Amino acid sequence: MSFTLIHKDKNSRARLGRLVTVRGDIDTPIFMPVATQGTVKALSNRDLRECKAEIILANAYHLYLRPGLEIIKNAGGLHKFMAWDKPILTDSGGYQVFSLARLRKVKDIGVEFQSHIDGSRHFLTPENVIDTQCILGSDILMPLDECLHYPCIKDEAQTAMKRTIQWAKRSKEALGRWQQANHGSQLLFGIVQGATYPDLRKSCVEQLAEMSFSGYSIGGISVGEPQDLMYNIVQSTCEYLPENFPRYLMGVGTPQDIISAVDFGVDMFDCVVPTRYGRNGTAFTSRGKIVVRNASFTNDLAPLDEECSCFVCREYSRSYIRHLLNAGEILGSAAVSYHNTYFYLEFMHKIRQAIKQDDFTGFKKNFLDRYNNTA
Amino acid sequence: MSFTLIHKDKNSRARLGRLVTVRGDIDTPIFMPVATQGTVKALSNRDLRECKAEIILANAYHLYLRPGLEIIKNAGGLHKFMAWDKPILTDSGGYQVFSLARLRKVKDIGVEFQSHIDGSRHFLTPENVIDTQCILGSDILMPLDECLHYPCIKDEAQTAMKRTIQWAKRSKEALGRWQQANHGSQLLFGIVQGATYPDLRKSCVEQLAEMSFSGYSIGGISVGEPQDLMYNIVQSTCEYLPENFPRYLMGVGTPQDIISAVDFGVDMFDCVVPTRYGRNGTAFTSRGKIVVRNASFTNDLAPLDEECSCFVCREYSRSYIRHLLNAGEILGSAAVSYHNTYFYLEFMHKIRQAIKQDDFTGFKKNFLDRYNNTA
Repeated sequence: MSFTLIHKDKNSRARLGRLVTVRGDIDTPIFMPVATQGTVKALSNRDLRECKAEIILANAYHLYLRPGLEIIKNAGGLHKFMAWDKPILTDSGGYQVFSLARLRKVKDIGVEFQSHIDGSRHFLTPENVIDTQCILGSDILMPLDECLHYPCIKDEAQTAMKRTIQWAKRSKEALGRWQQANHGSQLLFGIVQGATYPDLRKSCVEQLAEMSFSGYSIGGISVGEPQDLMYNIVQSTCEYLPENFPRYLMGVGTPQDIISAVDFGVDMFDCVVPTRYGRNGTAFTSRGKIVVRNASFTNDLAPLDEECSCFVCREYSRSYIRHLLNAGEILGSAAVSYHNTYFYLEFMHKIRQAIKQDDFTGFKKNFLDRYNNTA
Repeated sequence: MSFTLIHKDKNSRARLGRLVTVRGDIDTPIFMPVATQGTVKALSNRDLRECKAEIILANAYHLYLRPGLEIIKNAGGLHKFMAWDKPILTDSGGYQVFSLARLRKVKDIGVEFQSHIDGSRHFLTPENVIDTQCILGSDILMPLDECLHYPCIKDEAQTAMKRTIQWAKRSKEALGRWQQANHGSQLLFGIVQGATYPDLRKSCVEQLAEMSFSGYSIGGISVGEPQDLMYNIVQSTCEYLPENFPRYLMGVGTPQDIISAVDFGVDMFDCVVPTRYGRNGTAFTSRGKIVVRNASFTNDLAPLDEECSCFVCREYSRSYIRHLLNAGEILGSAAVSYHNTYFYLEFMHKIRQAIKQDDFTGFKKNFLDRYNNTA
């Protein structure tokens, strides 16, 4: 077993766990900064270490298209290529094909699409997607899945869910073949689809659990559905999921989303929000988001977040960072991206501490009150 | 005396010196990374410390226009605003008015121009330019000067040179008034103009030296003239300059330019080249410049410079940095900017070591042979 459930909060479904990989252990609940193209945008590997990142996510789809597998293979795998020696989780490209690619054609055998970069044609199958992630040297792999927009009718959701299950089965077999040939010890998660239909989600969980994956991802979330519905789906899916396996909510989300999902029993998260918002000059703070560009910060000598002890908050004022952003300076984007990543990882650390002390509910209320500026 | 000439190389005019400011001593010859808008582009203050920057240059013109003096004054001066506690040299804006501003009108009283950012009208005088730099909290100030393009006729060069001298005189008086009122201990340099006419340069040096500045800047260089002519002007100007004062060659240059100017007796340099080239993906190495984007580096796992021990060269390969640049990732630009800045400052360190050992000529030959790939 690669996952150990260490403690369950007495007053919620929040859980403390440990996920073991060959490149290091990960305490959950955890947030994974997103290194779409093999770099967490605007952060160096040292920045990530300082932010106490334990695992990062990279996008197989993006890296497969650019720079391409040969270059990363030549470097000795993605870890060496990007000089990051802790665990890497890769997604399969299912979501990117769905959101980025052109002329997508989904068949049972796989997906044909055109690159969003140069229009070149590619064909993804569950098997070659596993091979891609193995060549990258990923520690935790995702199978190819079919992801739909919200809203979608139940028939379509069911077809996609069934295909996702078939693909999960083929992915597991493909990884088995790879591991037999190469003595790998990668973990493979199953991805739960089923759109906003609880019975489809339940059926998907049951069929995946029967195949026994190392963990379970909740996919097809944050694809346009209202927040209440998203929370309902996450909550009910967590209820169906087997207890002793890590649960990963893909692509979510804001601090509010994360703390709510932890409350439902989710263990792992990834999202581009900290760095995307950071580049555009929006900082996450214990008192909510602030748009640093705003005129109100012109002469504000406080750090981005008075309660943060990150490098940026120790060194720079809101006034200075606002100037950098207004002047189009790289350091402005980099500084807020760094702070936001640190903020997210520190936030997860505090969540883990609260669960350990059976105080998750109190921590959540207190955090949200202050984050929403109502306390 | 704020400057001590410590050692003169036995076989060249290269000199080792120490410039004393209230914020720290500077060993010369020195290179000053350029923080045009209050940040050395793509580098944090920590990066600068790691690159062993002893002094940086900031542009009074840019900071006066954006964010404006009130904001920097509110922060307690430029050092606090940008969180940099070592010396800062500011230029006067003379060069920026000449190169960037619109509708420039130069009169004896000062220069009227329109901002390159928003078209707003401004009027610079020698007096208000000194006040601006004092408000910024600069450690080494430059007087307003009149800079001309190459080529220019002698009459124009003479008029601009005479005006530059008048303005230097008024600047010295203005700083005297400020220092009397505020107990400041800023250093003010005189700027030598005179275009490509040695007799004008000589006359300018003599008149400035009579006024006794803390150092002397060679201005109006690298404004379009051929390299030979530039070297001739720098060499002859150095011959006229008083020996016991620091000599600062403004806005120059490449490693070849710098090592040649050190040979003529120049002590201080600044240039945007390391960071500008860095952002665009050109790295300086002991074997010459490399365009990291080039296909030849696709699978090159060597660091940018095999002889460099900077953070970037310890962590990342050319192959990875090339990928980052091609993918438009901030880390690509930041990494090469960091390396280039480190390379320049390490280069100056080696120059100082060579002078100390009376081996500057040997070092220069060896450096240029390898830099030009002929050794």
